Amino acid sequence: MSRKSGLSERGKRVMKTEVIQLLEGRDDVTLTTYILDASPEMVGDQPRPAVIVCPGGAYLSCSDREGEPVALAFARMGYHAFVLRYSVALKPGENGFETDLKSIEPDPAKMHPQPMRDIAKAFAYINAHAKEWHVDVNRIGICGFSAGAHNCAMYSTHWAKLVIQEYINDSNVVLRPAACILGYPLTDYVYMKENASKDPRNFAFFDGSNTQFLGKNWDSEEKLLDASPARLVDENVPPTFIWTTSGDKLVPNQHSTLYALALAEGNIPYELHVFQDGDHGLATADRASAQALSQVNADAAKWIPLCSDWLVKYFAMDLPELTPWESMVANGIGF
Amino acid sequence: MSRKSGLSERGKRVMKTEVIQLLEGRDDVTLTTYILDASPEMVGDQPRPAVIVCPGGAYLSCSDREGEPVALAFARMGYHAFVLRYSVALKPGENGFETDLKSIEPDPAKMHPQPMRDIAKAFAYINAHAKEWHVDVNRIGICGFSAGAHNCAMYSTHWAKLVIQEYINDSNVVLRPAACILGYPLTDYVYMKENASKDPRNFAFFDGSNTQFLGKNWDSEEKLLDASPARLVDENVPPTFIWTTSGDKLVPNQHSTLYALALAEGNIPYELHVFQDGDHGLATADRASAQALSQVNADAAKWIPLCSDWLVKYFAMDLPELTPWESMVANGIGF
Repeated sequence: MSRKSGLSERGKRVMKTEVIQLLEGRDDVTLTTYILDASPEMVGDQPRPAVIVCPGGAYLSCSDREGEPVALAFARMGYHAFVLRYSVALKPGENGFETDLKSIEPDPAKMHPQPMRDIAKAFAYINAHAKEWHVDVNRIGICGFSAGAHNCAMYSTHWAKLVIQEYINDSNVVLRPAACILGYPLTDYVYMKENASKDPRNFAFFDGSNTQFLGKNWDSEEKLLDASPARLVDENVPPTFIWTTSGDKLVPNQHSTLYALALAEGNIPYELHVFQDGDHGLATADRASAQALSQVNADAAKWIPLCSDWLVKYFAMDLPELTPWESMVANGIGF
Repeated sequence: MSRKSGLSERGKRVMKTEVIQLLEGRDDVTLTTYILDASPEMVGDQPRPAVIVCPGGAYLSCSDREGEPVALAFARMGYHAFVLRYSVALKPGENGFETDLKSIEPDPAKMHPQPMRDIAKAFAYINAHAKEWHVDVNRIGICGFSAGAHNCAMYSTHWAKLVIQEYINDSNVVLRPAACILGYPLTDYVYMKENASKDPRNFAFFDGSNTQFLGKNWDSEEKLLDASPARLVDENVPPTFIWTTSGDKLVPNQHSTLYALALAEGNIPYELHVFQDGDHGLATADRASAQALSQVNADAAKWIPLCSDWLVKYFAMDLPELTPWESMVANGIGF
């Protein structure tokens, strides 16, 4: 019993998982790959769509609960998947609730607009490896949660602007996201500040997070607007799928409906699901990502099959019109 | 942008995929791993359940369509997954429909009982690496399709017998499967022979396959009985989940109901789903494994969520009774 010794081609067939450092001199920004095997018994080396997953964590950290379990949900659908750990303020393992965030000097290398530029860097890296990985660069989606969803909504509303285009500066790279999936997003800083008095506990937490993300005078009108995707929707925003829970006690579900309103006004195709019960941070909302029983929620967990059905509108692969028997004979056995 | 250079611990977090050769001097029998990341934000290094997937292929080949896409379905549920490519007659790429199977001398090294012994070898290998991979050896399930389902039903009915126990010969290895999942299985050779006249086309195909699997006088009464799990159910058979389609034109769905009858008679807990439409070899019955549109079947595709709900009876991990907010604070951010 030995590993990897003289295996046949068939034996080598397996998903490629790998961790890639995206930024020079920065070991914290990484792209983790879940590249599906290109078996000739399925779609073979035809390029497949892909989804880049941005975990949440208040721009202080990137939660593992919103990383691999979500990537596997998309891989399970037949799409390549990536987890992007973008720029955040804290080091892995540091506790945002035990840290005096106000005492940490905001780091310009990790602040806005770097997190959305990290998404652009992921697009550039995937474009450069599209042939090796069999990725369809015109069908790369983004999917985020909480702050990661904010980052995806920011990318959706900024990818065509100079802040992204000049950063990558390569017209051969397809930077347009083909679809955007947002789980319990934060989308409107103006709304957040106006309603801060309703929950001072949460606002204190956001205050620390936002100082790290937007700088010390984070609540200036200009900065709030610039970081509010719900106020920046234009024709470059891709089709969008949004889900949240009205029971979310950290990020009000209004951030989802406000973004939906903006998408509707902008004539962007979108789908919205607000489940009733369930607090913030449900990730897959099932046992695949739960760290507590309260995160297993059969209603909210429907976001994944709903999203799968929505995504097929844009990501379906061409399949031939063969009967199972015909395709079995064509492939030798293949069943 | 460089790969794997000086990454932090967080950056290294990723599912481990690897192809392992199971038998000395045999590059065709392999165990492919999909080992979930043990993030401390979820169940951490607590041992997780696992599922070994046995693709179908008439004991002539092992179909990729019933390999990785199915492994990812179980990984998506939060279980480690493995694809076992067990002993089969043909080499990868050989076409069973274009080969004169009668002209090939059956190879004793690949014939019955070797395929079910390969499952035992997979159990032994996983047991030996359970600590490294965080696998709960008392909760390893098996899942097969078509001939692979026959192999799993054979293992279910033989694992406690000498043919398996003496082959492994190590009382420290847990060989008992904790659960068995069968997709469009063949379970009763006696029934098959008695009903051969109903479809001569298929029977000719089975004749070639069975000669390779059971030897030249494959249809002797003794051999047929020994290879008919529906006639061998005893108290050692694990809880079983069966699904098929009544539209299956290759393996009659009676093989599923006959096995269900035997499980009921033996007081083995089981679940059975016979979907109406759909031919043989649907695998995940959706676009993740389809090579033709006829293999996308929204009804049959329900077998995966049904199986997920069934499997949780046996494979649920212990989770603490924390609110999302409590678990978020405990983990720093973790949402």
